[in-house]
Amino acid sequence: MGTALAEAFIGAGHPTTVWNRSAEKAAPLIAKGARHAATVEEAVAAGPLVIACLTTYDATREVLEPAAAALAGRALVTLNTGTPEGARELAAWAEAREVRFLGGAVKNVPPAVGKPGTLLYYGGDKAVFDTYEATLRVLGGDTVHLGDEPDLAALYEQAVGGLLLPALLGFFQGAALVTARGLKAGTLVRYTIKWLEMIASELPAIADEIDTGDYTRPRATVGIFHQAVAGELELGREAGIDVSWHLPMHALLERAVADGHRDHSIAALVETLRSPERRF
Amino acid sequence: MGTALAEAFIGAGHPTTVWNRSAEKAAPLIAKGARHAATVEEAVAAGPLVIACLTTYDATREVLEPAAAALAGRALVTLNTGTPEGARELAAWAEAREVRFLGGAVKNVPPAVGKPGTLLYYGGDKAVFDTYEATLRVLGGDTVHLGDEPDLAALYEQAVGGLLLPALLGFFQGAALVTARGLKAGTLVRYTIKWLEMIASELPAIADEIDTGDYTRPRATVGIFHQAVAGELELGREAGIDVSWHLPMHALLERAVADGHRDHSIAALVETLRSPERRF
Repeated sequence: MGTALAEAFIGAGHPTTVWNRSAEKAAPLIAKGARHAATVEEAVAAGPLVIACLTTYDATREVLEPAAAALAGRALVTLNTGTPEGARELAAWAEAREVRFLGGAVKNVPPAVGKPGTLLYYGGDKAVFDTYEATLRVLGGDTVHLGDEPDLAALYEQAVGGLLLPALLGFFQGAALVTARGLKAGTLVRYTIKWLEMIASELPAIADEIDTGDYTRPRATVGIFHQAVAGELELGREAGIDVSWHLPMHALLERAVADGHRDHSIAALVETLRSPERRF
Repeated sequence: MGTALAEAFIGAGHPTTVWNRSAEKAAPLIAKGARHAATVEEAVAAGPLVIACLTTYDATREVLEPAAAALAGRALVTLNTGTPEGARELAAWAEAREVRFLGGAVKNVPPAVGKPGTLLYYGGDKAVFDTYEATLRVLGGDTVHLGDEPDLAALYEQAVGGLLLPALLGFFQGAALVTARGLKAGTLVRYTIKWLEMIASELPAIADEIDTGDYTRPRATVGIFHQAVAGELELGREAGIDVSWHLPMHALLERAVADGHRDHSIAALVETLRSPERRF
């Protein structure tokens, strides 16, 4: 991701200085016109805007600590993944060192960086965002300031991104099912894309149910999903695949039904998630 | 769904006879121009094409059994949900009664029935499909014959549709997260739709990895998802929401790492699903 970010700035003709823990990763960027910093401090001192893309907030802090004096008065923008708590800790670290902080996230894959529709969102110092908005927009045309709290991008990263693994597992399970029948996983793609479009089209109504707390005009009920449980386990037996990852989802449906949500919209499951059993 | 199907035929000017277990459900359709059948036998006898939309294959068979003699020689198309096994049983029942069978599924919500982009797929008697393709297309412009096996629509229905509950739960979890911070679930919609589009754009490459069994050119590794596990549990603690439904997904990641897939594409999880532990 760091390479993709640097390439976008270089491609846009923006003066760009790069530093990487593995110096050899910087070489192709330098060949494309980036300046190379031998140390983090040198990289930080090269300009008023410092963009950090490391694995975690902790790694970011460790790498930047020796350059904290150079960083003071500059703007630090992070584009790693991590928890809201990690973002708040880094923001507090930055504030204590008079570093202006904006915590961001790239909501896409590296090849999408720099494209008009690519989404990046930021939380934190609005003045930093306003000053560098045009520069940040080089990384993706859909560049958003979520609010002043420095952990908002981390929060949305998890709130939006948390759908990825379960959705992929749903696709992998489908692939295991059809390939067990000698059919190609590729035959699922066109239908699954349509299915994702259908889900997308339902989200505004679902979000509205959650925001109003009114689940009484269901388009699909908790009960319908609850009924489908038996079929999913049977499917696992029939095709010899592991469907055990469904069991706690089924348990959530059971709890929702027990809580009186059988004839309510499936969105009522958010109420069940809000009342954890805390079994772990 | 049955009402939506009948309305589409009536709206297209197709002679339509309706029967429902709850007679009052038929009344609005009759007001729109459908003929009413007092019995299943009468409904079956009304035309050469019989479309059944009941809750399950078992329910379909129970309802049709008394009309089996009238059904002989006609085409039966089912549009319920159910397992491939259920579809095969109904197909065998139909064959024994000289009923030509096509098992279908509507891959969308009732309000989408009749629209140009709406997907319906069918498996079974190709001659039935060819004869009635134009009629079936009234229900949705994207009408597909998957193959001669009568359970293919049920198989694809589960293979494609199995993504829905986990994807929705991902969204509900995100909604629980942001609403715990006083933000609206509605603020997630635009970002989640983009995220679903990103997932859709990755599916061809993912399916190709599964079909070739080559997971060695990862765009996102098993290890990356495995690393994110701790963050997701922490997130649950921080926001006071139930993230226990993630635990078996984490267990699958653990198994995939143990099987040597750490640096492989996340699509390698399909191999893990194919080797169930059978813990239930």
